[in-house]
Amino acid sequence: MRFTIQRDKLIASVQDVMKAISSRTVIPILTGMKIEVRQHGVTLTGSDSDISIESYIPAEDEDKVYVENIEDGTIVLQAKYFPEIVRKLPEAQVDIVVDEQFNVKITSGKSEFNLNGQSADEYPHLPQVETENSFEMPIDLLKSMIKQTVFAVSTMETRPILTGVNIKLEDQKLVFTATDSHRLAKREVPVTGTNVSIEQVVVPGKSLNELYKILNDSEETVEISVTNNQILFRTEHLNFLSRLLDGNYPETSRLIPDHSKTTIQIKTTPLLRSIERASLLAKEERNNVVKFTSNDDGVIQISSNSPEIGNVEEEVTADEINGENLKISFSSKYMIDALKAIEYDEVVIEFTGAMRPFIICPVENDSILQLILPVRTY
Amino acid sequence: MRFTIQRDKLIASVQDVMKAISSRTVIPILTGMKIEVRQHGVTLTGSDSDISIESYIPAEDEDKVYVENIEDGTIVLQAKYFPEIVRKLPEAQVDIVVDEQFNVKITSGKSEFNLNGQSADEYPHLPQVETENSFEMPIDLLKSMIKQTVFAVSTMETRPILTGVNIKLEDQKLVFTATDSHRLAKREVPVTGTNVSIEQVVVPGKSLNELYKILNDSEETVEISVTNNQILFRTEHLNFLSRLLDGNYPETSRLIPDHSKTTIQIKTTPLLRSIERASLLAKEERNNVVKFTSNDDGVIQISSNSPEIGNVEEEVTADEINGENLKISFSSKYMIDALKAIEYDEVVIEFTGAMRPFIICPVENDSILQLILPVRTY
Repeated sequence: MRFTIQRDKLIASVQDVMKAISSRTVIPILTGMKIEVRQHGVTLTGSDSDISIESYIPAEDEDKVYVENIEDGTIVLQAKYFPEIVRKLPEAQVDIVVDEQFNVKITSGKSEFNLNGQSADEYPHLPQVETENSFEMPIDLLKSMIKQTVFAVSTMETRPILTGVNIKLEDQKLVFTATDSHRLAKREVPVTGTNVSIEQVVVPGKSLNELYKILNDSEETVEISVTNNQILFRTEHLNFLSRLLDGNYPETSRLIPDHSKTTIQIKTTPLLRSIERASLLAKEERNNVVKFTSNDDGVIQISSNSPEIGNVEEEVTADEINGENLKISFSSKYMIDALKAIEYDEVVIEFTGAMRPFIICPVENDSILQLILPVRTY
Repeated sequence: MRFTIQRDKLIASVQDVMKAISSRTVIPILTGMKIEVRQHGVTLTGSDSDISIESYIPAEDEDKVYVENIEDGTIVLQAKYFPEIVRKLPEAQVDIVVDEQFNVKITSGKSEFNLNGQSADEYPHLPQVETENSFEMPIDLLKSMIKQTVFAVSTMETRPILTGVNIKLEDQKLVFTATDSHRLAKREVPVTGTNVSIEQVVVPGKSLNELYKILNDSEETVEISVTNNQILFRTEHLNFLSRLLDGNYPETSRLIPDHSKTTIQIKTTPLLRSIERASLLAKEERNNVVKFTSNDDGVIQISSNSPEIGNVEEEVTADEINGENLKISFSSKYMIDALKAIEYDEVVIEFTGAMRPFIICPVENDSILQLILPVRTY
């Protein structure tokens, strides 16, 4: 096996597949990176058995030559050393030669590394995902959906199904839902040009966080396919495969109140900054609670009290308040997460009482919904 | 006590004095920040009893008003909360009012914090350093001297005196020396316009690292004064006070060889990069060792071997080699530190044999000297 490759291409691909490689895996060979060399190009693979990432470097692309001197072959290299070696090599080209004892010689300019490789025979085969039932969407839209929901997954292993994001595609409408049972985040987008439907799958939050980091905005669309226990995200040079979570995702639609007693329309950033300040004195308590009070004069008071340290009072002027006056307490962290996720300048908050969940949406747009359960303090 | 202050000025000063405040101090009041308000300005103080930092904000400076509505007074505030509160306040001005029970009210726009302060009576008085025997030097030169020596101090508490940098001023020559007994770094600069001499003081490396971070390049000179057990660095708005280390610093001048058997002149960056690469396979061993071999053809070979992982060979062409051929082994970390500190494009390395210390200097400039003890491997 042999190939000569452009170092910057190799660095980018190595960086991508490293996101799937963990040094703490129970399968020793998965601490390594698989490199497969064919006449048409080089494929790098990393996996921690939950997530697998394949990155492909074509030998030629639009008349540019990325890989030369190709002799087919496959090898597994220790991922602990290989990425930094590649990054620090002196020249723009790297030559990699592997002999039959899996000795790997990496040469660039006057620098020569000899590494002990491993046979790729022991490297697990990635599950094949049928790509017939697939649909496409813009990468930036997928990233936005991940960002607006994934923060709300549970981090507790007591209900494993809640550590994932529920994904559903029905009637050309794609819906992401995440909840940790104290708050919920939901995002809906229309998907055109497909009749595929996905009844209900739950993708680990960790996988989506890694996917978010790895997807760059230079490639335009991502193709998504699902089988029973895997989901595949495919872009031009990347396959990102994640296992799905087993179990039934709870029915969340009935959590969402369908009427409200108090509706407040308010600018997102001033409200967010006030709540951030109100949470400063309580930063060590896990659920630092702020009080939120609406008055007749259109002013919202936000306050927090930590007896040993002090207290804080904030005022924000609402753009519009309709319905009853309200006193409610909630986790400042949940509110901060929700307001940051919304990405619109102005929000509507709909309350149905101090002990009932409330929802936050952008003004005149219900494709994003954030729901928070209040905390009993009054 | 009361004052109204420009928030950006307050943020900058708070950030400076925070560098001296530790949450793990044994004197509880030192977890706080002292604020002293006088008609002429506001002084913030932080201290962990090893280092003390005072930052001064004048009420007016060059016709600009920084502090207004001044009523004199002093207070100590919990440093855990105050900095972040100040950073997040909504408006450009901050009003701080303290009553006789040390209740502190911080107001900015529609945001109001009430904090429990402490009396400043318990706050220790900083030692007064005589500033008669002081000398001045440019800030950037002091920073360069710190950077070129402080990395070589010992991190082991077995010989506490070696955890500091030895500072000496004699015959208008200022010398910084640091050694951990395996390597040594020395920098000399001429200081004009003073007859002050400092026989020998040892400043903790930790203090100098903090000083390096806090000194910015906008102020032009720093005034340095020493008493028996303290050193004071003073700039226009900053007093930085550090205790000195007790004990006798070892005589280091006789460590430095006065003749050489092999002299190599070489470009700094290619040598540094080669040694960095050669150290990649040994990154877990504490003293990862590289071999350095000079040949008749003017080529230096650098190599390293980690049996389980592999080996690496590098070649760098010297600009000039004089004297005997050489095989020597040394810690790559020490060599990397030394080459990074030198800040010149080309260096001279002088060897007096495989088991003798060798020195690295910039070409035609002996104001910086780096010395490294080799490792026995042949």
